[in-house]
Amino acid sequence: MASSRHSLPAGAGAARGEADTPSSHVMRFGLDQPLRLDSGQSIAPLQIAYQTYGTLNADRSNAILVCHALTGDQHVASDNPVTGKPGWWETVVGPGKPIDTDRFFVVCSNVVGGCMGSTGPASTNPATGQPFGLDLPLITIPDMVRAQAMLVDALGIDQLFCVAGGSMGGMQVLQWSVAYPERVFTALPIATGPRHSSQNIAFHEVGRQAIMADPDWRGGRYLAEGTSPRKGLAVARMAAHITYMSDEGLHRKFGRALQDRERVAFGFDADFQVESYLRHQGLSFVERFDANSYLYVTRAMDYFDIAADYGGRLANAFRGSRTRFCVASFTSDWLFPTIESKTVVRALNASGASVSFVEIETDRGHDAFLLDEPVLFATIRGFLTSAAAARWG
Amino acid sequence: MASSRHSLPAGAGAARGEADTPSSHVMRFGLDQPLRLDSGQSIAPLQIAYQTYGTLNADRSNAILVCHALTGDQHVASDNPVTGKPGWWETVVGPGKPIDTDRFFVVCSNVVGGCMGSTGPASTNPATGQPFGLDLPLITIPDMVRAQAMLVDALGIDQLFCVAGGSMGGMQVLQWSVAYPERVFTALPIATGPRHSSQNIAFHEVGRQAIMADPDWRGGRYLAEGTSPRKGLAVARMAAHITYMSDEGLHRKFGRALQDRERVAFGFDADFQVESYLRHQGLSFVERFDANSYLYVTRAMDYFDIAADYGGRLANAFRGSRTRFCVASFTSDWLFPTIESKTVVRALNASGASVSFVEIETDRGHDAFLLDEPVLFATIRGFLTSAAAARWG
Repeated sequence: MASSRHSLPAGAGAARGEADTPSSHVMRFGLDQPLRLDSGQSIAPLQIAYQTYGTLNADRSNAILVCHALTGDQHVASDNPVTGKPGWWETVVGPGKPIDTDRFFVVCSNVVGGCMGSTGPASTNPATGQPFGLDLPLITIPDMVRAQAMLVDALGIDQLFCVAGGSMGGMQVLQWSVAYPERVFTALPIATGPRHSSQNIAFHEVGRQAIMADPDWRGGRYLAEGTSPRKGLAVARMAAHITYMSDEGLHRKFGRALQDRERVAFGFDADFQVESYLRHQGLSFVERFDANSYLYVTRAMDYFDIAADYGGRLANAFRGSRTRFCVASFTSDWLFPTIESKTVVRALNASGASVSFVEIETDRGHDAFLLDEPVLFATIRGFLTSAAAARWG
Repeated sequence: MASSRHSLPAGAGAARGEADTPSSHVMRFGLDQPLRLDSGQSIAPLQIAYQTYGTLNADRSNAILVCHALTGDQHVASDNPVTGKPGWWETVVGPGKPIDTDRFFVVCSNVVGGCMGSTGPASTNPATGQPFGLDLPLITIPDMVRAQAMLVDALGIDQLFCVAGGSMGGMQVLQWSVAYPERVFTALPIATGPRHSSQNIAFHEVGRQAIMADPDWRGGRYLAEGTSPRKGLAVARMAAHITYMSDEGLHRKFGRALQDRERVAFGFDADFQVESYLRHQGLSFVERFDANSYLYVTRAMDYFDIAADYGGRLANAFRGSRTRFCVASFTSDWLFPTIESKTVVRALNASGASVSFVEIETDRGHDAFLLDEPVLFATIRGFLTSAAAARWG
């Protein structure tokens, strides 16, 4: 039996309170409603932390599910309780914004395996009273989506007007449209792909190895043992962060500019601005993210491969779909390059689905989906407006 | 006063003998011949380990200096004493090969800062009797080249028929042509650039942070303390190795193929072949390379920026040069993309130098310069043959 409550802000970081008592809505599912996992295992009880914005209309037809990326969370359009920073998509979601909360009811939940209140490796294992650590079963993108469907059910929403998200969020969008086509009126996968590439798996593996190489990781039991693999997690974030930007973007932003000095220091301190920028990215990340969650969520992305369940033919996954798709990519994104989006578009065309596609010119790389990109905003606004006209006249 | 000797093979790894008693020729420079460094410091005594192939002709005009890349060494065309594997450029250098040792006298020296017998951080600091560690002054690419010039002087060679190399080796080629234009008859910079880009500095910084995050690094004093930052160095190598390949190449080689199983294992072992491949790259690298050398040599690459000494105008660096250049790049190289080579070519054209340029089609990324690339082989052979005709008729 699902139950919802709003807890007080924990006001603390990922591994310091959010795991069990998140500062957002929480939906709890008991032992009678296990989350069935692709691995064959299941999770029960299950907790899903989520945020909502706007008002659900009378016939519950105006809900938009926003899916977050690897290190995102449910705080889409309101201050993040851990960092104190604005929500991660406030440029897109809010009153009068492209996803207009004056019109739509927006839901975003922390993914299962995450560290912001949904059940994850930092959550308490009821069997031991200790954090799960690696005793939590592996999670996949379809598992995340199955959990979201349980939440959407519990909110009494039958069909989502839209499922939207970028990067790993876009993987969830695609998975929603394949697993629950009748529940997705429109789908907006951004800067994503139908599977994780070999190169992307390789980068994730480097990050995981950096975490697991840190002796403070303690085989995943660092919370119980009072340590934290901060250095390993920071290195993982630094490596990943490079992949979120582009060569051109880094060059424009930093070039070879030095850090507060006129010539190189002939040492191993951060000489170049790009070095201190990266170090800052690494250090600030460990304040807000749980290392084991990083292992779980990267692994979920690695495992993602829609076509694999359809005999290797992606088009078969979308066969008969009546969902309206809008696919967006960015020219300088080399993590999910445009060819990945085009693969989705071709498959949708081959399956006879309704699809529009835009490749947006930018030098900001993969991260562009989180930044001030007017063409993206216009694309989202236009797509939702015309879909709303089709839906409601 | 320089002296040369041939020591017995040490038969051991980088940090296990090669540092002080390398298994190749060694040129020693005494306190009266210090290596002056860009930092203002100097190194004396200095040791340079090198290999030669072929025979120096009577007028000492047929010498080709081959410059190695970041983790390369002097063992170009003969078995590597540490790994037991063939030399790193046996496809290019040897009897009848594109750099034909029946015709040319090939010299290759381990860079200063390296770990295969030239003075580096693993060498014994004469002031303490302990390994230098971070007490060795920082090294730059011009410093490496200055040391090579001391070796070439000691070998009695006035002008090199060619200086050739890829990646960091190519940086040395460019630096030779700028610092000693009259001593370089032809120059063959491959898969390189006139400066290290912001993105490349970023990747190097991740590697250094991974090493320095390893508690067994001990602030650089691991040799004296009997430890080894193996995990950190392996992570650094893994991250770097991805940048040596291409997305297409990784896809062709591994795709999403699983490792010895039919379905994913739902765990953190190496599920995908690309993961076990990367882990192997990391683990085998630590057997042959010194972690502090990795810090020093990556830093040298980061600092490289020829134009900086010429008011930001690269063409001024080559003004008046009579060297014949042949510049080569690879289509899928994203570490030193073709645009970096074109920048060199444009500057050479602007300075009135003689230059030919080829961009070679391949999906093997940056590593292509080390692999079986027939167009590269034909390019090198043709360039050297026509230069030899111009030189000797």
